[in-house]
Amino acid sequence: MTVFRFEVTHTCPETHARAGLLETPHGVIETPIFMPVGTAGTVKGMKPRDLHEMEAQIILGNTYHLYLRPGHELVKKAGGLHAFTGWNKPMLTDSGGFQVFSHSDLNKIKEKGVEFRSHIDGSKHFLGPEESIAIQEALGADIIMAFDECVALPAPREKILEGMQRTTRWLKRCMEAHTREDQALFGIVQGGTELDLRKQHLAELVEFDLPGYALGGLSVGEAPEEMHKVVHAIAPLMPEQKPRYLMGVGRPEDLTTCVAGGIDMFDCVMPTRNARNAYLFTKTGRVKIRNAQYKEDWRPIDETCSCYTCQNFSRAYLRHLFVCKEMLGAVLATHHNLHYYINLMTEMRQALREGNFGTWYHSYQTSMAEK
Amino acid sequence: MTVFRFEVTHTCPETHARAGLLETPHGVIETPIFMPVGTAGTVKGMKPRDLHEMEAQIILGNTYHLYLRPGHELVKKAGGLHAFTGWNKPMLTDSGGFQVFSHSDLNKIKEKGVEFRSHIDGSKHFLGPEESIAIQEALGADIIMAFDECVALPAPREKILEGMQRTTRWLKRCMEAHTREDQALFGIVQGGTELDLRKQHLAELVEFDLPGYALGGLSVGEAPEEMHKVVHAIAPLMPEQKPRYLMGVGRPEDLTTCVAGGIDMFDCVMPTRNARNAYLFTKTGRVKIRNAQYKEDWRPIDETCSCYTCQNFSRAYLRHLFVCKEMLGAVLATHHNLHYYINLMTEMRQALREGNFGTWYHSYQTSMAEK
Repeated sequence: MTVFRFEVTHTCPETHARAGLLETPHGVIETPIFMPVGTAGTVKGMKPRDLHEMEAQIILGNTYHLYLRPGHELVKKAGGLHAFTGWNKPMLTDSGGFQVFSHSDLNKIKEKGVEFRSHIDGSKHFLGPEESIAIQEALGADIIMAFDECVALPAPREKILEGMQRTTRWLKRCMEAHTREDQALFGIVQGGTELDLRKQHLAELVEFDLPGYALGGLSVGEAPEEMHKVVHAIAPLMPEQKPRYLMGVGRPEDLTTCVAGGIDMFDCVMPTRNARNAYLFTKTGRVKIRNAQYKEDWRPIDETCSCYTCQNFSRAYLRHLFVCKEMLGAVLATHHNLHYYINLMTEMRQALREGNFGTWYHSYQTSMAEK
Repeated sequence: MTVFRFEVTHTCPETHARAGLLETPHGVIETPIFMPVGTAGTVKGMKPRDLHEMEAQIILGNTYHLYLRPGHELVKKAGGLHAFTGWNKPMLTDSGGFQVFSHSDLNKIKEKGVEFRSHIDGSKHFLGPEESIAIQEALGADIIMAFDECVALPAPREKILEGMQRTTRWLKRCMEAHTREDQALFGIVQGGTELDLRKQHLAELVEFDLPGYALGGLSVGEAPEEMHKVVHAIAPLMPEQKPRYLMGVGRPEDLTTCVAGGIDMFDCVMPTRNARNAYLFTKTGRVKIRNAQYKEDWRPIDETCSCYTCQNFSRAYLRHLFVCKEMLGAVLATHHNLHYYINLMTEMRQALREGNFGTWYHSYQTSMAEK
């Protein structure tokens, strides 16, 4: 699978941060990278060309949602998720496990997999390692994820251990089920916030020599500081020559901290979901654009931002759109927030390439502390 | 006000259709033209650059909505509706009269104007000729409309006559209130479907030598054939050297028929509202994209269409977006429907310039009859 060559091109002498290149069948991804979430085959409100414009390099699709609607067989007939959605750059699909587990009153976990009810119509379904891989092969993303058991935190150590062991057994079944050589299967390290369990599980998974490894089961109820502690302890131990993906994280400050901890890939609904709720990210702090204080604020959301929204519209106009529930509000806010996240990653890559990530990171931390 | 020069450049020897150029402070409009409706300072879901791409030349804003939210004083502070919304080409605002009258249980008509309650919060407001012009001057569109009384049809002749006479008295007050020389004030011909009243009212209004005239009070409950009859009888009598605007019309077949009747300008919410309800216009008929028959239809909405949506997405994908209530569905559908309307007008202008509108129109009528 040489098509998935990953190369670390720059490392930071002061932190564990690194920049790299990940080759996939749909193009090269520059890491560290943030992946916008396109749950149901669309990053809500964004056209593919909007995503190209903000320099999104890879987007994520959700297996759970796509399996239910429109169904993976239909996507396969369309020629895969790339052809179906019009996105011709790299894609990653998750395993569906997280969604199935997070609807916890609707599911029943067994060794074979998980019985669950659709959140749409209550219909019964079953998802196990083999099913998840079959669906992900039909969807055809460049990177696919192993079907894991993700335990909500806080949880007793015993439950975390159980989920971890099952995740390993399920990984083996995923690898056996996986047939497409043009898709890289990443494994997922579990172990909650128990560092010894995390190390133990990582060691188990590394034996499989997978093309990439993810930290799963974080950002599921624990404090951000707890999550940072796990990342800083575990990420540096993950294989150096493989991409490291922190799933479902997070806030801008989590991204920077975890890049410093050695993470290469991130995804999170925060920039898109917050945008739809009128919460905007800026260099000088968050803006709740519905607030009356922006009624006559003729400045762009962020005066330092080069996105389409900031180049063309005022806070007052954005506020008006949200007050009137006009969908252009959500569209323009989503464009801005995603640009903010992607640009933050670009800045970090740039600093890594120029050899001054340590300085950049220190200055970022200071500016955050002042807010 | 030479800035509003209107020139008829081509006429059809077989019908009353004509092509022309209307100069405004924000650019030249090629007629016949369709104006997308941007009710609250946004054509729902469309960025200005989307509208430029589909070659929209002028858009319409609603005085009633903009007065209530965000308020005309705020728009004025922003530098007018052009600056506020980021649309730098021509704009037209209506008078607010139609909206005030169409919420008929909420209003009280007097000679001075109309007392009404906001549909948003029930608050009491007053709109008369002077108020409408003051608001429209604050909004700053290139073309503004006289405040008229629009009678819902069917209505007794006496009521239509009353509304017509009041419209003339209100027009005088509008003209007196109107101060901005960079805005063209159009008068509105009323008279319901009574042809003699229409002729009488038109004759009255022509005396004022306004820069443009509209047919109002149509598409308000009467059959399309009734409306066509009025247009074909009255439009040819309207001043030849002035733009003729048919308000609130209509379906594609209404546009072609009324261009043949001599109309130059149209506006209607149909392409945008229908798009949001998943009704799409195509050369081969209407497509209800939610229907199961499109589930695995890999063709674009319209195979002859050059719009962004048709160039990039299948009916199956559009259907999926609507089934999942994804806002990208409404965005892409709106883009297509507006492109369809605008392209239809472009075709008619082209035929007029090439001297074969009669043939084009006959062929269009035949193809419509076959559907």
